[in-house]
Parts: sequence; C-alpha cells; structure tokens
Amino acid sequence: MKELSKLLGYREEIRVVDATMRDGGLVNDFHFSDEFVKALYMTNLKAGVDYMELGYKGSKEMFDVNKFGKWKFTNDEDILKVIGENKDTGMKLAAMADVGRCDYKTDIISRSESPLDLIRVACYIHQIPAAIDMIEDAKRKGYEVSCNIMAISNAQEGDIKVALDMLGQSPVDVIYIVDSFGSLFPEQIARIAHLYGEFAEKYGKQLGMHAHNNQQLAFANTIEAVGDGVNWLDATYNGMGRGAGNCYMEHLLGFLRNPKYNLFPVIRFIENQMAELKKSGAVWGYETQYFFTGLLNQHPRSAIAFTKEGRKDYAQFYTELLGMD
Amino acid sequence: MKELSKLLGYREEIRVVDATMRDGGLVNDFHFSDEFVKALYMTNLKAGVDYMELGYKGSKEMFDVNKFGKWKFTNDEDILKVIGENKDTGMKLAAMADVGRCDYKTDIISRSESPLDLIRVACYIHQIPAAIDMIEDAKRKGYEVSCNIMAISNAQEGDIKVALDMLGQSPVDVIYIVDSFGSLFPEQIARIAHLYGEFAEKYGKQLGMHAHNNQQLAFANTIEAVGDGVNWLDATYNGMGRGAGNCYMEHLLGFLRNPKYNLFPVIRFIENQMAELKKSGAVWGYETQYFFTGLLNQHPRSAIAFTKEGRKDYAQFYTELLGMD
Repeated sequence: MKELSKLLGYREEIRVVDATMRDGGLVNDFHFSDEFVKALYMTNLKAGVDYMELGYKGSKEMFDVNKFGKWKFTNDEDILKVIGENKDTGMKLAAMADVGRCDYKTDIISRSESPLDLIRVACYIHQIPAAIDMIEDAKRKGYEVSCNIMAISNAQEGDIKVALDMLGQSPVDVIYIVDSFGSLFPEQIARIAHLYGEFAEKYGKQLGMHAHNNQQLAFANTIEAVGDGVNWLDATYNGMGRGAGNCYMEHLLGFLRNPKYNLFPVIRFIENQMAELKKSGAVWGYETQYFFTGLLNQHPRSAIAFTKEGRKDYAQFYTELLGMD
Repeated sequence: MKELSKLLGYREEIRVVDATMRDGGLVNDFHFSDEFVKALYMTNLKAGVDYMELGYKGSKEMFDVNKFGKWKFTNDEDILKVIGENKDTGMKLAAMADVGRCDYKTDIISRSESPLDLIRVACYIHQIPAAIDMIEDAKRKGYEVSCNIMAISNAQEGDIKVALDMLGQSPVDVIYIVDSFGSLFPEQIARIAHLYGEFAEKYGKQLGMHAHNNQQLAFANTIEAVGDGVNWLDATYNGMGRGAGNCYMEHLLGFLRNPKYNLFPVIRFIENQMAELKKSGAVWGYETQYFFTGLLNQHPRSAIAFTKEGRKDYAQFYTELLGMD
C-alpha cells in the first residue's frame, strides 16, 4: 500500500508536462490557431504547469510544411511570434524530436538562442543508439533532455534493461515510461516503475510517465506511477491526444496536492477553447474501438481508421483485430 | 506490489455482477424493452457473468408504477414472463432493495417460489440496523444476501468499523465497498479494502466492489480491489449507470483471466443493443461535470441536472459546487 503521506502530502520534485499541442496535435495535424496557443500558454502559467510541450521538431525534408500546422515543426521564430521569449515565468518550454524524423543537427539550435528549454527525444527500443546521439547533441547545446522509449508493452524485459543501462550512461535527465498502446494495467505500471527505478537510482536520472487512455486507465496509471516514485507526469487538456488520448490535465491537477497547481484556469480553458476545438471537428478520447487495440496491445492506427470511417460494427472489427495477432 | 500470479492467474472465487439494468435503470427510469432484457440475459449467460441484477424491489406505495419501467419493482411475475425461470443456467438473478424504499416483508417472497437468488440490500451508514432487519428477513426466506453501504467517502472510519462489525455479526454473505460519488483514488480503495478485509476475515464474509466513473477510475478502482482480495465485482455494459456510470463490463471481462468469461458476446450486445439505447436518448458516462462532483466528493445530482439542462458553463458550475462545500 502507498504511504498515507503520499495521499495528503506532496513531493516537490513532481513536474507536470502539458503535452496537449504535441500529442493532441496528432489529432488535428497541429492546426492550432495562434489564439489557442497563446491562451493555452497563459492558462498553463496560471495553472502552475511546469513544462509546456509545443509540438514536434519534424523534419522539413520529410514532412510538407503546407500540409501540417506549424507545431509539427516548432520553429523558434514561431514560438517567439506566438508566445514570446517566456523569460522568468517559472514554466519551461519543450518540443519533441523523433528519432529518424528530425534534422536535429540543424533544426535544434543552441539553447541560449532558443526559447525552448527541454528536448524530448522519442524512439523505439531498437533506436536507442540513435536516440543517444540526439540526447548528446541536445545536451551539448545546453538543453534539458528527456527520452521516451515508446511501445514498451511489446518489448522484452531483457532488451528494456539494456536500453535503460545505455540511457543511464548517457547525459539524459529524464527517462519516460510510455504506454503507447494504452494496454498496461496499474499493476504492470508498478512493476515497470520498479524496474526503471533501479536504473534511475543507479545513474541519478528522473523518471516520467506518459499514458494513453484506451482502457480508461491513463489517469490511473499516471497516479500509480506517482505512488511508485515517478516524478515527471504528462497530461493533456480534456485528455486530447492520439486515438483514445492521454491522462486528463484536469484529473491530474485535481489529484496533486502541491498548492502551486491550480485547477480553475484549466476548467475555464476547457470551457472556452477545448469545446470549440471539438466543435471544429477534432476527434479524440475513449471509444470502444480503442479499448480493443489497447486490450490486444496493438498500435491504435486501425482503431483510428475505424473511427474516421464512421464504422460501428464492433464485433467485426474485433474479429479483424484478432486476425492481426 | 501485487503478486504476478494475480496478473496471469485467476481466483475461482471471483464473481462478476452485471448491474446494467439496476444502476443503468437510474438513467432511463427502468424503461428497458423486453427484447433488450431478454437479449441482455442471453448475453450474460454466454459471457459467463455470475449474477445479473434486474432492478430494484421498489415500494409500490412510494413509487408510481405508471411512471417507471417495470424493473424499478422487479416483480417475480415480470421476471418469469421476460426471462423465464432461469433454472440450471449457472447464472443467478439479483434485485436491489433500498432501506426505506422497499416493502420487503411483503414484496420479497420465499426464494423457493421466486426466480431471484440474491437480494442486494443498499443503505447509508446510519441505516445499518434497518439494513440488518432486511438482511435477516431475506436470509430467512432463503436468499443469498449482500449489503452495499453507500457514500462511505463521506463517513468516518470509526463509524465504518462499527457498521462492519454489526454486519459481520449479521447473516449477510457479501459486504460491498461502494464509491457512490466516484471520489476515491485507487490508493484509498487499497486502504478501504484492507479495513473491510479485517472484518470480512473475522466473520467469514465476502467483499464486493461497486465503483463510479466520475474521475475515470471505476475500472481502475475495481481492479485495484481485485488485487486487494475483493471477489464480487459490479460492472455494467458500456459503463451504463447513474451520472458518470460504472465500471465497464467489457473492461472487466478483458482484464479477468478465468476462461469462463467471454468478451465477444458483450461486444456484440454493445453493437446491437447499447448503441440503440444511446440513440433513444439515454445519457450516461464520463463528462467534465461529473469529474467535478467526484473530485469534490459530492452527490452527482447537481451534475446530472447540469447535463439535463444542456449547460456548458463549466467554470460557473464548478464555482457553484465550491459554494456547496
């Protein structure tokens, strides 16, 4: 059982990361209006959010800048134009850089010349060496750096241990537990957090949690991780994120006890901006089809297609998914 | 941490209780068509559900039989007409009897003459003596009997201990942990299950879990309870239940490892019947307003009113709720 003090007290080391524009951007191809972004930024400041992730550092060689909103690329000049320099606010700015989908050597400039503070490297487990090259590059440029190892529910424990040992020896600051498919139960999160914790302790790293809501467990898995010593917590407004979405920011701030966090500005933003976003056609959040892919530990792409096609033949879809196993 | 064997193995003692018609009936005033009820019954049989709760044994003195569907009253003759005798199916039938809202002495007949097997007595903590009178009455008539102590998130631990000790000495078979307001976190469920477990062990009782989904924790709290030794688990199709609803039957059957449980018939029923029910205007499930009442540990009635009025002014509503504290 978790200590009672963890229910009523709080850990100063907790960091809340707003991933709305990054994971949520996967829903609307990053077409957020400047007004939305500015309002979200102001809300995060009021809510006490520690890090705001603005989007991806996507390669302009690989992705058509005319097809995506600007936060697929998160150019420094766009940040400065929409948000400003973000000086002395107490909140830090982040962008995600995917292994193999980012020209990090040229597109990520020195931190001293950028409004960004944190580079979040994302990779699959077989890409750890490439991730470490990106981590070292970002560290040399002065950034805080985290690493998301994605889709670990499909990885072997032996491989995960090797990856954690390699990351431990790298200059990365934070290693994330990522439940990409929303397939993990809290009992498994506890076990994974314990495993990651051994390496975090050995190498002096922080741990993070990034959850998906396929089985309506994103919040539960996130607070399970809190109880297991994980300090960096991803959340998004209204749970906006790919497919079934993520841990809801409002749930997480309602749970955390540090008085620096404020729920009320989040509520106002949900009323004013998120409702509008939904009306404009952005679709995310728990539905039966996402439960299926989560339960079967599969990538949500087939459930996303099911949603887009307006299908409702759940039994047929489930049978198709079983055929993919 | 939970034992690994609890993740991959299973406990024979687990009992799944389908509460769709009872808690879900609060959404549509128990207006389920006979076809729906018959199909649900057949589905539960195929899915391996252990108990099917058909509705309330509501007092016909207090409630107008013309205003509610028949499952507000769950007359034996209606069960026989729609479902039949339910002989030798392996699944048992249940009805809920609320303290103070049920003429149990006359309306609950001897089990040998009724298709019902289980009487679920529901009470608030100050009504335990009345609940015990009902428990003894139902036991004398030959039923299995459970007791739901509602709204314990607002009760004092000292009072709960007294209640558990009284129930322990009664002939009740199962004592339910009930998170009426959907306000409890899994860490609290663990603590409560531990407390209930002391009395269950002392008096040889089983424990049950009935969760609400206000913070999207109904499933998480239910499987937390499983890990804590709770064997009787309430769930509803698509989570249908008052306000934010309950633990989803599909999630629970996806989690449980006993091969007697089958998810597929549940999926087919969701496609064929639950979608139709939603189209007909029945509204339930997680929404922001239910999160507020859950977080603030309040009865969901104000959030239900907010929903019915079609309000979307979340910030104003939250402010109103704070004023009720």
